[in-house]
Amino acid sequence: MKKNSLRGVVLVISSPSGAGKTTICKKILEEVNGINLSVSVTTRKKRKDEVEGVDYFFKNDEEFILMIKNDEFIENAKVFGNYYGTLKEEVLKKIKNGVDVLVDIDWQGTRQIQKHIPEDIVKIFILPPSIKELECRLRNRASENEEDFLKRMLEARKEISHFDEYDFIIINENINEAVSSVKSILYSERQRKSRHLGIIDFVNKLI
Amino acid sequence: MKKNSLRGVVLVISSPSGAGKTTICKKILEEVNGINLSVSVTTRKKRKDEVEGVDYFFKNDEEFILMIKNDEFIENAKVFGNYYGTLKEEVLKKIKNGVDVLVDIDWQGTRQIQKHIPEDIVKIFILPPSIKELECRLRNRASENEEDFLKRMLEARKEISHFDEYDFIIINENINEAVSSVKSILYSERQRKSRHLGIIDFVNKLI
Repeated sequence: MKKNSLRGVVLVISSPSGAGKTTICKKILEEVNGINLSVSVTTRKKRKDEVEGVDYFFKNDEEFILMIKNDEFIENAKVFGNYYGTLKEEVLKKIKNGVDVLVDIDWQGTRQIQKHIPEDIVKIFILPPSIKELECRLRNRASENEEDFLKRMLEARKEISHFDEYDFIIINENINEAVSSVKSILYSERQRKSRHLGIIDFVNKLI
Repeated sequence: MKKNSLRGVVLVISSPSGAGKTTICKKILEEVNGINLSVSVTTRKKRKDEVEGVDYFFKNDEEFILMIKNDEFIENAKVFGNYYGTLKEEVLKKIKNGVDVLVDIDWQGTRQIQKHIPEDIVKIFILPPSIKELECRLRNRASENEEDFLKRMLEARKEISHFDEYDFIIINENINEAVSSVKSILYSERQRKSRHLGIIDFVNKLI
């Protein structure tokens, strides 16, 4: 069985901010072959160094809303006045070609993806090792504004309360171990029976 | 989360003979911490070097049949006139203590275990890379008796026809890659939400 006869998996990773998700995703993309991010659609302004179709597909509000109506997204959200969305066609094309797709998204986006492609999604939730550690990390990010810090803590707690909607839980005590756990989950899912597209033909030849 | 707050998994590995299952199981037991075989019960005669309670629990036919009646096994079978069985209590004690249990068994035993502990079983099927390779390996084992070879091929085909009852399929083209795939599946299952026994308390402390 060659890699190209496997169906890819959509690996969704969620966590409260401060749990190390961004670092984990970066390392997975660097260290694992055959997985990449999907190119999102956004209505926010293109920055100088960004390339259309590589960093994002850039659309205006009208175009984006039409795409929502046409059911072109497996998830979309409005963040600070700008729309962001993940294209269904983009993701399906990749997994059909045996490429895994990494999606770094919150619980609301995860729910939307779950509705669209329940058979292809594998959901991982990253937790911080303790409340003390989470507070420490968020305090560092919030500079010296107590109100900002409290807002971040509230957001984090809200995100954590949805851990039960995920398949796998990784407690990030050590970044290398956490990355290694994500890799195991991905490598394991690649062996799942439903991913082996040609398996029935293969077995028929055997028996 | 310490290892002892995880619930163990019962990792069942099946395959036709000649697909490399025995070698794979041996390597898993040697190379992975926290997994071992369950001690089976048998009615066959104790060999000189075998230790009661370590290699097997030795019983007579009457005792064994009573144990079947008392529903003490998660699987049992009669092979060449002797009974063999896996103790439910033995397996449940291990997984409650966070120890994984490796079970090397055919599709019939797998079905029995599936019935008894559906929440704790993870099922892997190992396939040979090709019919040619399978024939070659079985011909080597069958010495020069054509009838014996044909019987083994028939048995192998029968076993393979049940591949669809398993969660994961590994095509054993390379023994090290196959072992590595089994390890990934095990490490992945250890992160599954349902294995984290203390997760609700842990999350409640976080939020």
